[in-house]
Amino acid sequence: MTISAMNFCTHCGTRLEHRIPPGDNLPRHVCPNCGEIHYCNPKIIVGCVAEWDGRLLLCRRAIEPRLGQWTLPAGFMEVGETTAHAAFRETHEEACARVGIEQLFALVNIPHISQVHLFYRAHLLDTNFAPGEESLETQLFSEDEIPWHELAFSSVDHCLKAFFGDRRSGHFGFHETTLAPP
Amino acid sequence: MTISAMNFCTHCGTRLEHRIPPGDNLPRHVCPNCGEIHYCNPKIIVGCVAEWDGRLLLCRRAIEPRLGQWTLPAGFMEVGETTAHAAFRETHEEACARVGIEQLFALVNIPHISQVHLFYRAHLLDTNFAPGEESLETQLFSEDEIPWHELAFSSVDHCLKAFFGDRRSGHFGFHETTLAPP
Repeated sequence: MTISAMNFCTHCGTRLEHRIPPGDNLPRHVCPNCGEIHYCNPKIIVGCVAEWDGRLLLCRRAIEPRLGQWTLPAGFMEVGETTAHAAFRETHEEACARVGIEQLFALVNIPHISQVHLFYRAHLLDTNFAPGEESLETQLFSEDEIPWHELAFSSVDHCLKAFFGDRRSGHFGFHETTLAPP
Repeated sequence: MTISAMNFCTHCGTRLEHRIPPGDNLPRHVCPNCGEIHYCNPKIIVGCVAEWDGRLLLCRRAIEPRLGQWTLPAGFMEVGETTAHAAFRETHEEACARVGIEQLFALVNIPHISQVHLFYRAHLLDTNFAPGEESLETQLFSEDEIPWHELAFSSVDHCLKAFFGDRRSGHFGFHETTLAPP
């Protein structure tokens, strides 16, 4: 989070004060000139567990953090889109893949970095996938091929384990969890 | 959204430029002095459908927007908390109520204002509720008592209808929807 870097008002450029506004109960970054209150908000990351013939699509990251490690296609939700569209877009950007979005499958809270990760189940519409700009490789993996020790993020590890657990049980549910700091 | 008000770098106070950073595909607010990229992100609103003996807890708003209209207890998720904790906290702040949080019940996308609303099912632990600072009244309503024409927000209307529909069917599911501009 960039709370410590919040020094100036984005609206008028005045140096901000850090105090509790009237009617609030937490200190906020308040502009003494124009009165704007600059809230810090958690961020939403959305991705896909995209399946083709029993195997799942993973991307090897071409960017930091975790360059070279494997992840589900996912990224920051943009303004003006829905969560499902963000999942579709990120899968296309990172893996050049086209998917049909199904149900929301997992919600992973990561409060120490103020992120909420949402993963949708999805199916690939074809196998014309390829690394996007932020990926080194894209590949389908069966359960016993998943590179468990080279996964980029705990939320991806959680999501994949929940997926294979549900598949074995014959019923896909919705999984909510909270990750503690490493 | 305050995209138009993003004029100055929060980090160093320099006037921002609006351009596509290297490796990106959307224009962002970029600082030509310190290099910081200021992303705009959707915001998360979290609330509760809190039940006591078949009736649901609503709050009449003491603040704008929609002052005087009825809503489910809900509000902006804060940094450093989980979605479930945000639902618990907002219910306590707006209705002085203590709840046991159950499953995530609804996800409502409102892309034209870049918000994602999450509602949890919950049960009141007792009937010691009362208006918080942002509420004029707090009250339990059965289905036929809900003030449908005085509800503050479409997401609340959607969530209440889904709740009563599920209750009639005997099975509570998870509901995802997208609201269009009014």
